[in-house]
Amino acid sequence: LQELIIGVDLGATKILTGIMDIDGNILDQTWIKTGRKLGSQYVLGQLTDGIKKIIKDNCSPDDVILGIVVASPGPLAWPEGIVYDSPNLKWSMVPIKRELETRLKVPFIAVEHDTNIAALGEYYFGYRQQYQDLIYITVSTGIGGGYILNGQVYRGARGGAGELGHMVVKPGGERCGCGRQGCLEAIASGTAISREANLLIQQGKGLGILAFSQGKEPVSAREVAAACLAGDPEARNIIDQAVKHLGLGIANLVNLFNPEIIILGGSVALGLKDYIAEPLENQVKQQVFRMHADSLQISFSSIGQENALLGCLARYLIGPSTFPRVKADHFI
Amino acid sequence: LQELIIGVDLGATKILTGIMDIDGNILDQTWIKTGRKLGSQYVLGQLTDGIKKIIKDNCSPDDVILGIVVASPGPLAWPEGIVYDSPNLKWSMVPIKRELETRLKVPFIAVEHDTNIAALGEYYFGYRQQYQDLIYITVSTGIGGGYILNGQVYRGARGGAGELGHMVVKPGGERCGCGRQGCLEAIASGTAISREANLLIQQGKGLGILAFSQGKEPVSAREVAAACLAGDPEARNIIDQAVKHLGLGIANLVNLFNPEIIILGGSVALGLKDYIAEPLENQVKQQVFRMHADSLQISFSSIGQENALLGCLARYLIGPSTFPRVKADHFI
Repeated sequence: LQELIIGVDLGATKILTGIMDIDGNILDQTWIKTGRKLGSQYVLGQLTDGIKKIIKDNCSPDDVILGIVVASPGPLAWPEGIVYDSPNLKWSMVPIKRELETRLKVPFIAVEHDTNIAALGEYYFGYRQQYQDLIYITVSTGIGGGYILNGQVYRGARGGAGELGHMVVKPGGERCGCGRQGCLEAIASGTAISREANLLIQQGKGLGILAFSQGKEPVSAREVAAACLAGDPEARNIIDQAVKHLGLGIANLVNLFNPEIIILGGSVALGLKDYIAEPLENQVKQQVFRMHADSLQISFSSIGQENALLGCLARYLIGPSTFPRVKADHFI
Repeated sequence: LQELIIGVDLGATKILTGIMDIDGNILDQTWIKTGRKLGSQYVLGQLTDGIKKIIKDNCSPDDVILGIVVASPGPLAWPEGIVYDSPNLKWSMVPIKRELETRLKVPFIAVEHDTNIAALGEYYFGYRQQYQDLIYITVSTGIGGGYILNGQVYRGARGGAGELGHMVVKPGGERCGCGRQGCLEAIASGTAISREANLLIQQGKGLGILAFSQGKEPVSAREVAAACLAGDPEARNIIDQAVKHLGLGIANLVNLFNPEIIILGGSVALGLKDYIAEPLENQVKQQVFRMHADSLQISFSSIGQENALLGCLARYLIGPSTFPRVKADHFI
C-alpha cells in the first residue's frame, strides 16, 4: 500500500505532472505541451487526464492519494483558485480549482500561485530550520515572487501577493505585458533581454549574439545568455543592464521586507548564475541600509527543476488535514 | 489600585510620554522637545526622566506598571532595540532598549519601530475584526510604513521591514536623505514638497505659497499644503506631482503585498486628506491588477494623534506575558 501526493505545475508552455511519496521521492513525472491556444477548457482536460494517467500508471487500486496540489500562474484568486487576468496564460476568470474538483470528483484540491509553491518548496526542503523570512524570485520570461514571512506563506488579501515583476522602477520606461511602463519585468526579465538584443540586431549589430542562434531571428534570452557566458561584449552589456535593474528591484524588496534570504530561480537567473551572482549581490548591498545588508543572504535555487513538485509536496505538508484521503481506484 | 501602561513616542523633534489603562483611557501625556543635538545620552536621560515623572505624577506607590513600550525611528534592530544609522535622529548604533532597561532597572522594555507601533494601533483598535493584511503608511517629513500580515506585525529579519520611503521609483532622480537617488521619500514626502516650493520661489515664482508663510523663507510643506487647500495653482501642481509619485509607490506596494487595507497617516497625508483622497485612490487603482484593486480599501488614520500611545498599548496587548509587573514605587 502506497500513500502518494500528486503535484502539477501548470505553465504557459508546458504542464508537469508528478507523483511522489511524503518523503519527496518522485515515482514518476510527465511533461506535455500546454494547449493554451485551444482554450481553457482544453487545458483543464489536459490537467485532468494527466492526473488520472499518472495515478493509473503508478498505483494499484488500494493505494491512497493523500492530496492533489496544482501550481498555477497568477494573478490567481485565493483560496478560490480562479485565474484572473493572466498575462502569461492569456486567460480571464478561469476557476481552475472548482473545475478540477468537479472533473476529478474530489472535494478539495489545493490550487496555488506557482511562485508561492516555489517559495514553499525552497523553505520546506531547504531553509526551514534556519530562516523565518524568505523571498523567492523567479527570473525567466517574466519576473515573479513568493514570500515566506514569519514562517508562513504570505498570499495577501486575494492571493495576489508577490507580483514583484510589476513593481514600477522606471516610470515612463519600456512597455510591460501588463500594460504599464517601466515594470521590473519590462526591463530585467528574459523578455527584456531578448528585446534589447533584437533591437541591436535590427541596427545591424549583435553579430556575436546571432552566432549563438545560427543566424535565426528573433534571438531568445537563452541565446543572449550563451553569448554573454562566452564573453561577447554586446551580450554582456545587455545582461549587465538587466542585472543593474534587477539589483535595484531586489534592493527595493530588501528595504521593504528586510528578508533573511533571497533565493533566485527561473531559467534566466539559473542559466546566468555564475556570471551574475557577484555583481547582483554587490548592486543590492550597495543600495540598502547597512542593517538590512548585514542580515541578508542572496542564493540561487538548488532544487531547480524539482522545485515545483517539491513545492506541491510542501503545500500538502503545511496543511495535510484539509486534504481528503482518496483511494487510487477512484481515479482509475 | 491602578494597573497602567507607559507609552513613549521618541521623535526627531519631540518626545511624547503617556500613561494609560488597559482599555486605552489616557490618564496623562506630556511632550518635550527632543534634545537631539545634545547627543543620544542626553535624550536617553530625557526618556528616563519622562517615564519616571509621569509615573510619579499619576500613581500611588502600590499601583502597578504592566509594561513600558517605546516607539523609535528606524532603522531599529529588533529585538535588540538598537537604533542603527537613523537619518532622522542622526544617530548610529544607540542601544535604546538596553540603556532604558538599565537606567530604569526593569528587565524588559519593548522598543519598536514607530511605524510598526502605528500599524499595531490601527489594527488593534480599528480593523482587527475585519482584516488580516494591513499596511500603514506615514507621509510627513519622511515616508515610512508598518505591516500587519496574516494578522501579525511583520518586522523582517532584524526589524528593518517597512522602509518604504526608500523604495527607489525614479532612478537617477532627486537625492534622498539616505544617500540614494529617486527614493519615494525624496519625491513624495513633506521634504520633497517644501523643496519643490522653495525651488519655485528662488525662481521668483510661488507668490501664492509665500503668502501663507508671511513671506518667510524657506517655506514648509505645511504652508504649501495650506496654499494648495486654498486653491493656489502652483501649490496644487506641487502637491499633484507628489500625489502622482505617492500613487505609484502605493501601487507598487499593492502589487507586492495585495493588502486588504492601506491606511495613510502622518502630517502631510492627514493635512491634505480632503484634497488627495480621491486622486490618490484613482492613481493607485489604475496601476494595479484588477484582482488587487477589487480587494483594496484605502483609508486615512482616524486615531491620529493618539495613534502612537494606542499603538504602544497594542504592543503590550499582543504579548502581555513578556512584560514584568513592576510596582509604581520602583520608579518613584
